Amino acid sequence: MTITLRSPLDMHIHFRQDNMLRVVAPLTAAHFAGGVVMPNLIPPVNTLEALHRYTGEVNAATYGYAFAPYMTLFFRDYSREELEAAKPHIIGIKLYPAGATTNSEAGVREISAMDHVFAEMESLDIPLLVHGETHGFVMDREREFCEVYRYLARTFPRLRITMEHITTRDALDVLEEFDNVAATVTAHHLVITLDDVVGGLMNPHLFCKPIAKRPEDRDALLAAALQVHPKIMLGSDSAPHPVDKKECPGCAAGVFTAPILLPLLADLFERHGALDKLQQFVSDNAIRHYRLTPPSTTVTLERTPMTIPPSYGDVVPMWAGRQLPWSVTNVEAHHTS
Amino acid sequence: MTITLRSPLDMHIHFRQDNMLRVVAPLTAAHFAGGVVMPNLIPPVNTLEALHRYTGEVNAATYGYAFAPYMTLFFRDYSREELEAAKPHIIGIKLYPAGATTNSEAGVREISAMDHVFAEMESLDIPLLVHGETHGFVMDREREFCEVYRYLARTFPRLRITMEHITTRDALDVLEEFDNVAATVTAHHLVITLDDVVGGLMNPHLFCKPIAKRPEDRDALLAAALQVHPKIMLGSDSAPHPVDKKECPGCAAGVFTAPILLPLLADLFERHGALDKLQQFVSDNAIRHYRLTPPSTTVTLERTPMTIPPSYGDVVPMWAGRQLPWSVTNVEAHHTS
Repeated sequence: MTITLRSPLDMHIHFRQDNMLRVVAPLTAAHFAGGVVMPNLIPPVNTLEALHRYTGEVNAATYGYAFAPYMTLFFRDYSREELEAAKPHIIGIKLYPAGATTNSEAGVREISAMDHVFAEMESLDIPLLVHGETHGFVMDREREFCEVYRYLARTFPRLRITMEHITTRDALDVLEEFDNVAATVTAHHLVITLDDVVGGLMNPHLFCKPIAKRPEDRDALLAAALQVHPKIMLGSDSAPHPVDKKECPGCAAGVFTAPILLPLLADLFERHGALDKLQQFVSDNAIRHYRLTPPSTTVTLERTPMTIPPSYGDVVPMWAGRQLPWSVTNVEAHHTS
Repeated sequence: MTITLRSPLDMHIHFRQDNMLRVVAPLTAAHFAGGVVMPNLIPPVNTLEALHRYTGEVNAATYGYAFAPYMTLFFRDYSREELEAAKPHIIGIKLYPAGATTNSEAGVREISAMDHVFAEMESLDIPLLVHGETHGFVMDREREFCEVYRYLARTFPRLRITMEHITTRDALDVLEEFDNVAATVTAHHLVITLDDVVGGLMNPHLFCKPIAKRPEDRDALLAAALQVHPKIMLGSDSAPHPVDKKECPGCAAGVFTAPILLPLLADLFERHGALDKLQQFVSDNAIRHYRLTPPSTTVTLERTPMTIPPSYGDVVPMWAGRQLPWSVTNVEAHHTS
C-alpha cells in the first residue's frame, strides 16, 4: 500500500542557526518541497540584511534538495519603505508577543501600538503570521489571545492573518468568523494532550509552546484537519533543541518532528479513513492561501514500518524509539524546463 | 524576629527505602516531631510483617531525633483480623487508585468492590487516607474523584477520611460537606500553579501528582490554610527521587520539600500577615484530628536567610539555589519523666 503526495509543504519550521541548521534543515528538505522558516534567531531576523544572510545560510544547508524556503521577518515597527523592500523576499512577517516563546524577548509588548505597521502590511498585502498567546495562565493563553486575533481581523479586514500552531477550539471559532484569517496546526497537537506531557511520567520532548491542551481541543483540531478545513494548513512548528537543553531543570520549549511528520500524518489520516485528504492538508491549502508555486515533487510513502531514531545529531525527536507503520520510500523532483 | 512552633507535624511524607531513606528521613526528623509515613514502597507495605520491618528501618534512620513516625498500610482487601492486628501500629490505611502515582501499581482498581473493608475500618475506627485521582485528563482527575470521596463519606459516615494533598477548589467543597472528611495540603500547592511547571521553561523539580492546578485553585487552598481551616493539615508529600530520575525523558513525579518546609511556610504565612496561624496549620489541627500525642519539641525560626542547597545527596530540592528569608535556628526536645 502506498500514497503519493505532491509538493508537501511545512508552513511553520524552526531551522535555527549554525550547526543545528545544518543538522535539521536537510531533514525537512528531504521530504518537503518548501516551508515557512521562522525568524526567532539570536538576534532576531528583523532587517533585510539579516534576512538575506539567513536565506543564504538556509539555501546552503538545503543545497541539492528541491526545497523552497519561504522566509519571514521578525515583526517590529517597520517603515513602509522597509516593508516595500522586504516584500519580494518574504512570505510574511511573524509577530511574537514579547517573551511568549523561545527567543521572543524582542517581541511586541503592546500590539495596538503597532496599528500603523499592520495598516501598511495590509495595503502592501504582506501576510501577518502570529504566535497567539497572552501572558496569562498557561492553559488560557491562546483562548485569551483570541480577542487580539478578532481585533486584528476586524480592524484590518484585508490583512491576511495566519494564526500559527493553534491548539484550542477557541481558535477554530475565530477561523470561522473572519475570511482573512487562516491557521496552521502542528502534527503533534493533532495527537497529544497535556496528559502526554505531564499526565504520566513527565516528557520534556513533548513540552512545547503553546502547551498541548485538553482532549476536547485536540479532538476538535483533528476533526478540522481530517475534514480538510480549507483554511487549515500543516505547520509543524518542528523546534529542535540540543538534548542537554531538554533533559534538564529548565527545559526549553519545542517538539522536534521534522523527519517523522509525513509518516506520522499518513498513519493518523489512515487510522481515521482520511488518507485521501492528506494532500490538501499538507500542501493544497497552503498553495491556495499563500498563492505559492513550490518546486514540483512527488513523495511516496509505503506501509513499511519506520522506527524513530533515538536522536538526530544531539536532538531527540518526538516519540524516539517508537515505530510508525508508514515510511517515506521515494522522493522525486520534477524539473520543468 | 523569631517564631517558635510546638511539635510541628508533617502528615504526608515519602521516606522511601535504603540509601534514600537514610538521606531524607533525618531531614524531616530534624525539624518535625512526627509525620505520616507513606507505604508505597516496592513491594508495597501491605502486611503487618512488612510494616514492622519498615517501622524499624524508619526508626533506625531517625535515631537520635525526637520524631514519631506515624505508619500507614497500603490499602488492599484486608480481613477484620488483619485490621485488628494492625490497628495499634498504624495511623491509618492509604488507598491508591491503581497507577495513579509512584509505585501505585498494586492499588485499587474498583473502589466500590472494597466496601466490606471500608465497613470494617469504620467499625474499628481506622482512618482512611486517600490519593484522590481518577484516570481522567490530568487537570480533571481530582475534581472527578470528588464523587468517590462523597460516596465514601456518605456510605461510611463514621469512617474518618483524609483527602491527601488536595489541589482544587472542588476538594475544598467536599471538605465542607462532610464532618468525617479532613484534608492535607502540601506547601508547594500553596505557592505554585501549572505555570511554574510548564508555563515558562519546564521544571521537572516542580512536577508532581496531583499536578499543580490553576491560580484560582492555588488561591483557594492558600486562603483555607491561612485562615486555618480546622480540618486542613500540612502534609508535605515531600517525594524525593534521584536527580537522574527527574532530569530525563520520563521524569518521575514528586517535589522534594522536607528540609525547606518550615522556612517556606514561615515566609508564606508572614507575607500574608498570618504567622500566628502557622502553629495550627503545622501541628494543632493534626493533633486534634488524629488525637495524637507527639514528642514535645519547640522549633525556632529566625528571620535569617536560608539559601536552598543545590541538592541533598542526589536529590534536588524545590527551589534549589533560591533564598528564603527564614531559617530554622534551634530545635529542642522536651523529655517528660
